[in-house]
Amino acid sequence: MPDTTTLTSLPFDRTPFESLLKRRVFFTESFEIYRKATNFNGDNKGLYDYGPPGCALQANIVDAWRKHFVLEEDMLELDCTMLTPEEVFKTSGHVEKFADWMCKDPITGDYLRADHLVESVLEGRLDGDRRARSLAIEKEEKAGSDSKKNKLKAKDVEAMRLDDPTKQEYEEILAKIDNYDGPELGELIKRLNIRNPNSNNPVLPPIPFNLMFKTSIGPSAAASAYLRPETAQSQFVNFRKLLEYNQNQMPFASASIGKAFRNEIAPRSGLLRVREFLLAEIEHFVDPDGGKKHEKFEEVREVELRLLDRETQLAGQTDLRIMMIGEAVKQRIVDNETLGYFLARVRLFLQKLGVSMEKLRFRQHLANEMAHYATDCWDAELLTSYGWIECVGCADRSVYDLTVHAKRTGEALVVREPLAEPLEVEEWQAMLDKKKLGPKFRKDAKTIEDAIAALSQTALESAAATLEKEEKITLRLSDSHSDITLSTDLITISQVTRLEHTREYTPNVIEPSFGIGRILYSLLEHVYWHREGDVARGVLSLPPSIAPTKVLLVPLSAQPAFLPILRTLSRKLRALGISSRIDDSSATIGKRYSRNDELGTPFGVTVDFESVKDGSVTLRERDGMRQVRSSQEGVVEAIVRLVAGLETWEDVESRLPAFGVE
Amino acid sequence: MPDTTTLTSLPFDRTPFESLLKRRVFFTESFEIYRKATNFNGDNKGLYDYGPPGCALQANIVDAWRKHFVLEEDMLELDCTMLTPEEVFKTSGHVEKFADWMCKDPITGDYLRADHLVESVLEGRLDGDRRARSLAIEKEEKAGSDSKKNKLKAKDVEAMRLDDPTKQEYEEILAKIDNYDGPELGELIKRLNIRNPNSNNPVLPPIPFNLMFKTSIGPSAAASAYLRPETAQSQFVNFRKLLEYNQNQMPFASASIGKAFRNEIAPRSGLLRVREFLLAEIEHFVDPDGGKKHEKFEEVREVELRLLDRETQLAGQTDLRIMMIGEAVKQRIVDNETLGYFLARVRLFLQKLGVSMEKLRFRQHLANEMAHYATDCWDAELLTSYGWIECVGCADRSVYDLTVHAKRTGEALVVREPLAEPLEVEEWQAMLDKKKLGPKFRKDAKTIEDAIAALSQTALESAAATLEKEEKITLRLSDSHSDITLSTDLITISQVTRLEHTREYTPNVIEPSFGIGRILYSLLEHVYWHREGDVARGVLSLPPSIAPTKVLLVPLSAQPAFLPILRTLSRKLRALGISSRIDDSSATIGKRYSRNDELGTPFGVTVDFESVKDGSVTLRERDGMRQVRSSQEGVVEAIVRLVAGLETWEDVESRLPAFGVE
Repeated sequence: MPDTTTLTSLPFDRTPFESLLKRRVFFTESFEIYRKATNFNGDNKGLYDYGPPGCALQANIVDAWRKHFVLEEDMLELDCTMLTPEEVFKTSGHVEKFADWMCKDPITGDYLRADHLVESVLEGRLDGDRRARSLAIEKEEKAGSDSKKNKLKAKDVEAMRLDDPTKQEYEEILAKIDNYDGPELGELIKRLNIRNPNSNNPVLPPIPFNLMFKTSIGPSAAASAYLRPETAQSQFVNFRKLLEYNQNQMPFASASIGKAFRNEIAPRSGLLRVREFLLAEIEHFVDPDGGKKHEKFEEVREVELRLLDRETQLAGQTDLRIMMIGEAVKQRIVDNETLGYFLARVRLFLQKLGVSMEKLRFRQHLANEMAHYATDCWDAELLTSYGWIECVGCADRSVYDLTVHAKRTGEALVVREPLAEPLEVEEWQAMLDKKKLGPKFRKDAKTIEDAIAALSQTALESAAATLEKEEKITLRLSDSHSDITLSTDLITISQVTRLEHTREYTPNVIEPSFGIGRILYSLLEHVYWHREGDVARGVLSLPPSIAPTKVLLVPLSAQPAFLPILRTLSRKLRALGISSRIDDSSATIGKRYSRNDELGTPFGVTVDFESVKDGSVTLRERDGMRQVRSSQEGVVEAIVRLVAGLETWEDVESRLPAFGVE
Repeated sequence: MPDTTTLTSLPFDRTPFESLLKRRVFFTESFEIYRKATNFNGDNKGLYDYGPPGCALQANIVDAWRKHFVLEEDMLELDCTMLTPEEVFKTSGHVEKFADWMCKDPITGDYLRADHLVESVLEGRLDGDRRARSLAIEKEEKAGSDSKKNKLKAKDVEAMRLDDPTKQEYEEILAKIDNYDGPELGELIKRLNIRNPNSNNPVLPPIPFNLMFKTSIGPSAAASAYLRPETAQSQFVNFRKLLEYNQNQMPFASASIGKAFRNEIAPRSGLLRVREFLLAEIEHFVDPDGGKKHEKFEEVREVELRLLDRETQLAGQTDLRIMMIGEAVKQRIVDNETLGYFLARVRLFLQKLGVSMEKLRFRQHLANEMAHYATDCWDAELLTSYGWIECVGCADRSVYDLTVHAKRTGEALVVREPLAEPLEVEEWQAMLDKKKLGPKFRKDAKTIEDAIAALSQTALESAAATLEKEEKITLRLSDSHSDITLSTDLITISQVTRLEHTREYTPNVIEPSFGIGRILYSLLEHVYWHREGDVARGVLSLPPSIAPTKVLLVPLSAQPAFLPILRTLSRKLRALGISSRIDDSSATIGKRYSRNDELGTPFGVTVDFESVKDGSVTLRERDGMRQVRSSQEGVVEAIVRLVAGLETWEDVESRLPAFGVE
């Protein structure tokens, strides 16, 4: 297995890759024709549309997700509104806390995300230092290739050299950049003289910017609302209904797939940081007692994960610990079985999609990095040409959300379980002699009863002591100004034993949350390559189950006899649920295959003169460009088995006769 | 076929139906626990969440839609952002025109939708009149049953009687209520003394209220944006990319499934009028020349539709014309083949879902009712207990959208086709003698050239005549105040013949647009019934392909030997892509089946003592509650064939032995 720390500077040529995605309309900036023509500025960035292959790829990833998680574990799927009344996000803490820190350049008016500003400036300085050091070592006086690019003279490069303690400080800051809060970032910006790199102006101190989009509902505009930044809250507020639907059985999970919105300060990195995105979220509700065991943990115990834990990062390091999840939970690197189970399931899911396992790591959040609702969080990060990217967050939200919503609404968001053995509870109980109470206090009698009933156990205990000592107690009624005295002939307070038949608890929530767009983009980088020596012939080696279209159907030439055969094949495949596309354009067959290599279409079927005679067709595999020949039925069957993962291409080659190579 | 006009007063008992949907969490008001506990008002209405069965039902409808339309016709599917910059909707006309008229009650502060206000008040008056007339005819002095309900004395009812011309006027207004604009509604409200029925206050004149939700993007809040009220605009602005992706072949269609938002003035009628909803939209791009023929029209020519055309409505009538779509297009009741093709395909789709064909009609929009972009529109309306509900709109948007976006952005949103035969075009051409022009006009020479080049054919023709007559022409340059005179030695204008090799045109757009939530709700009403004599035993007769869960798996009792058999069956079914659910709760088997009748689960498999002995199980059909018995393999095979529609229950009963009835 390669050393992943070196992989962070991946030699990935993004230009032909991006050109391919654009040419084949995997995705495009939304409203692109408006960007060119009108005064669209940065404020309209971070919005993307998926074209036909991107849309199909996304649908296949979502389908795989639903099968791997929702259907496999009988999760309760919901589809909830994105528009959310303000009150809900006030309660959840998002109105106050769901913010990033930003700095304003007072001269240009630019807004910069504070952590990204510190990061990019310090990375720039370290980069300058690296160049200065390599210059010093090599005594390379001409500095030819460097100067061409950035017009820097050797002495300018020399000036970028940092002293050793400064260099070390910068590296340590970067290793824990996610751990600084706003004031701390402000202190760094001031102390290290960090300026807006685009203007070289000093910036104002960081201020928080709430990431939720605000709108209002209804004609009076009185009801403020937000677009949800996560699907989770709707799952929490529906908890009681879900528990009932699940016939009160615990544990269980709900799940939701839908768009969410975050008003990013300065979107960048294409699909990786966008303002509207598809989220697939699971909320697994579990009894906090008993260490959050998971009944299926055994099934994943031996799944190997690459972990970057909190301690390692705080030490300014990025070394991975590679171990089985069973061992990680045993050593308490990962807190509990339920969290561990989902980390392992996430890895298996990403593997199924075709993500490169060498470019996957699980990184634990630093304390200040965690969302306000989380007590622990591990991100599945994928390595791309933009660095390590958070694609799945697995947070332990503990009882946070259910508790705050229950408190705000008065709804009991709890589980009530009959106890196998009733529990004996010792408690203080007050008894009033109602026959005497009524005549004595008349209209106040009811108020006194209520006041006594409302006393806490502690208050009852102390009242019992007073009664014991003074043979009377005094209490002030809330709606009256006079004190009431009750003597022992009216009230007795004693300890009794009560049997409790029900246990009541608030479940903990483990939340695996998937950014589908980020996974889709990272996956595309992982499966992209080009034919030997020809960067113009790109290939996307997507697994057949995930590829947007499974089969390309091509006639060898414009011969009219070919088309009916293709149409029959297309109909047969459609009936089997396999997507195909006929390409009867006038381009050469090589060009048509190349186009489909770029679309990631794993298989191609060619109809030629032999097909008309004997019904046979050829089947081509995308990655190796090798072909076999068989009857139409034989080829359809092979495709079905290949797409379902029941056979590999090698299996098919061993069964069916080879056909001349392209 | 029953007379549909009488069906408008459907005897549908909504109480047990709604109670069923609520109990089984098909859907629920969003944030319900907040509605009870906090000061949520009407402004937060019109938002619904789908629970597990509703979510699965919606997914199955969407899946059927994608197969019936997108896959069947190789449509290009897109997934585009909901956040849309203001400039786009300014161009499309939505900022100015996408509004409903509303009236404010100045005393209560209520906002009422003007057309709904007129409608409900006039319907109330007609209803009163009906009661008064029946009273008069029957001379029914006691008026027992009436007075119980509404505490009205006979003479009060008498007072509600309308004179004949008034009655007729109200009926005519209601038949074309969708045809009034704001000022016309205002005039009706004033003239007919229509007041807020909740307060009896007079209301202010109607004002337009834009239905789009507004927000802003980015930290500076400078970029206004809207949540899309339809998915269509993103398909239009991506037209050029889509045409290229389709290798410049016409006609083609794009499609998009996603949420849209409309800030309804006063949402009501549950799922039928909501503020956030799932839309599935097709934009079919077609050459306007040649009468918008459709190559697959023959396949649907004999599909019978129930039509309510514009003329009938304007005559104050609601009679349906029942005819084959081929005949309707021939008679030009439906304008063209492409529109007709989609109407027929919509009917076939709704039929597949299980919608009652007697409760489907196609109604043509009245002129003032149409959206600002449409030249013609037919709605597929489904009859529910709320009346006829628009569920699918089929609009002819002609060249409207592509034209306005092209004009605003300068992007050519057109099709360019090579002509088989080049076209000879006669046109006027001006030739300048540049050698003389330069020295004479110096710096103005270029401006003159441009001005001449910009002249239209008409202007050239008239200039040629002037030149012929006066031997000079005069023109005023836009950036100058002096006239320029050009004599025949400097300019000649003559007619030439030019060959045109390309035809350029803006495609027309036919748009079938599906409100998935409305279809889902209406379908549920259509398939709901209850067992003979027992309103508490509701059944949803959803077709197997659409039902949320296909199979219920139940053990006859808590016998531990049953569960492994159920788990094996569940695994087998899942591998075949068929959703099942095990119910091993302690409820009686009858109760467990009833629960699944309510969920619309079409099949049930019971494992009993025989199963443990000989491996056989029973298979139950929901609607008839009849059972057959077979081996597990036999039952799984029957389920597969039933769900795929390859066999009916009668087929299965004729093959497999019956088992004692429940």
